[in-house]
Amino acid sequence: MKRITKISDSAVRRLSHYLRFLEDTEAAGKRTVSSEDLAERGGITSAQVRKDLSHFGSFGKRGTGYPVALLREQIMEILGLGRTWRVALVGAGKLGAALFHYAGFRRQGFEIVAVLDRDPAKVGRRWADVAIEDVGELARVVKKQGVELAIVTTPADAAQEVVDALAAAGVEAILNFAPRKLSVPVGVTLRDVNLAMELESLTFALTHRDRG
Amino acid sequence: MKRITKISDSAVRRLSHYLRFLEDTEAAGKRTVSSEDLAERGGITSAQVRKDLSHFGSFGKRGTGYPVALLREQIMEILGLGRTWRVALVGAGKLGAALFHYAGFRRQGFEIVAVLDRDPAKVGRRWADVAIEDVGELARVVKKQGVELAIVTTPADAAQEVVDALAAAGVEAILNFAPRKLSVPVGVTLRDVNLAMELESLTFALTHRDRG
Repeated sequence: MKRITKISDSAVRRLSHYLRFLEDTEAAGKRTVSSEDLAERGGITSAQVRKDLSHFGSFGKRGTGYPVALLREQIMEILGLGRTWRVALVGAGKLGAALFHYAGFRRQGFEIVAVLDRDPAKVGRRWADVAIEDVGELARVVKKQGVELAIVTTPADAAQEVVDALAAAGVEAILNFAPRKLSVPVGVTLRDVNLAMELESLTFALTHRDRG
Repeated sequence: MKRITKISDSAVRRLSHYLRFLEDTEAAGKRTVSSEDLAERGGITSAQVRKDLSHFGSFGKRGTGYPVALLREQIMEILGLGRTWRVALVGAGKLGAALFHYAGFRRQGFEIVAVLDRDPAKVGRRWADVAIEDVGELARVVKKQGVELAIVTTPADAAQEVVDALAAAGVEAILNFAPRKLSVPVGVTLRDVNLAMELESLTFALTHRDRG
């Protein structure tokens, strides 16, 4: 599997796109897809699709297309899906609550097993069957619950401290929603979802649109 | 202003980063910042910062730093902020509800003036002072409410149809949370927030981490 670590971020993102397409295709009862079908969905060339998929085996013979179920299983395995991941959510605000209840996570195998916050008024409350714990207990909770991945929805000014604590507790993958550029040690993977930034790129486009 | 339309997406994202930093700096009572300060926060070089900011005026003299308030105002103007944007939210599920109540949007000037859904059981309910309307009424609602920007939180299989309807109704900027690659006509700017994809890039990293 070592070779696979060399896949670029953009290639991993394309695999996610292919996976969505394959899931839909399988649900629709189709058993094979062409590289052209996969390319159309992802907005990329069919040559790129064939190149991406050539890493994962020799199926996809010219003229017959790719077997949907097999390709889906292989991509899921490469992406580390098809198993349950134990997730901690840090920051029990409105965005945290929404993500906690977001059915899509569980469907994909992400199980939020711990929720933490620094607000004493929230600590001890329950969301479904998870009791909110004090963020000061983070290391203990991570260990007890076997947390592998964390979602950070704290205010911006608390996020770096939380990420440092997560990394120190051995969490190696973090999805950050706090609008702040964070640093993580080597060996920890951080992804940012910055809603403010996405909106600002839209208002930039609206403000500078060319009225020809 | 025409020259500004040539700024790359990544430059617009850096401006968003600078803006966050300037807001914090101003709140902390500092009146000037150096390109090194701005660079450190954004994880980029100070030469890149100086190059980015050289487009926006001749302040930032060597040795004196940038005036925080003025630079913040200029970046806000370039990004189209400092005014209110009228937003429609399409898809009144859990994620839509969270985004509706997310205080950060309003603070940045994004006012959700319309919520639409296709579920008859939801239509007519109120979220705060906004009544949920039928997505079939989208064109009328967009016109009546003066909607300029839309947030799409529908299921994947409904998203393209919704985006087509938004574009046809004259909405030129769309933030999409549905996990599907969507196409928009020329003149419409689309940004995707794909939570599944971000998580999959994390599980990929966890699965293929090098245990040395």
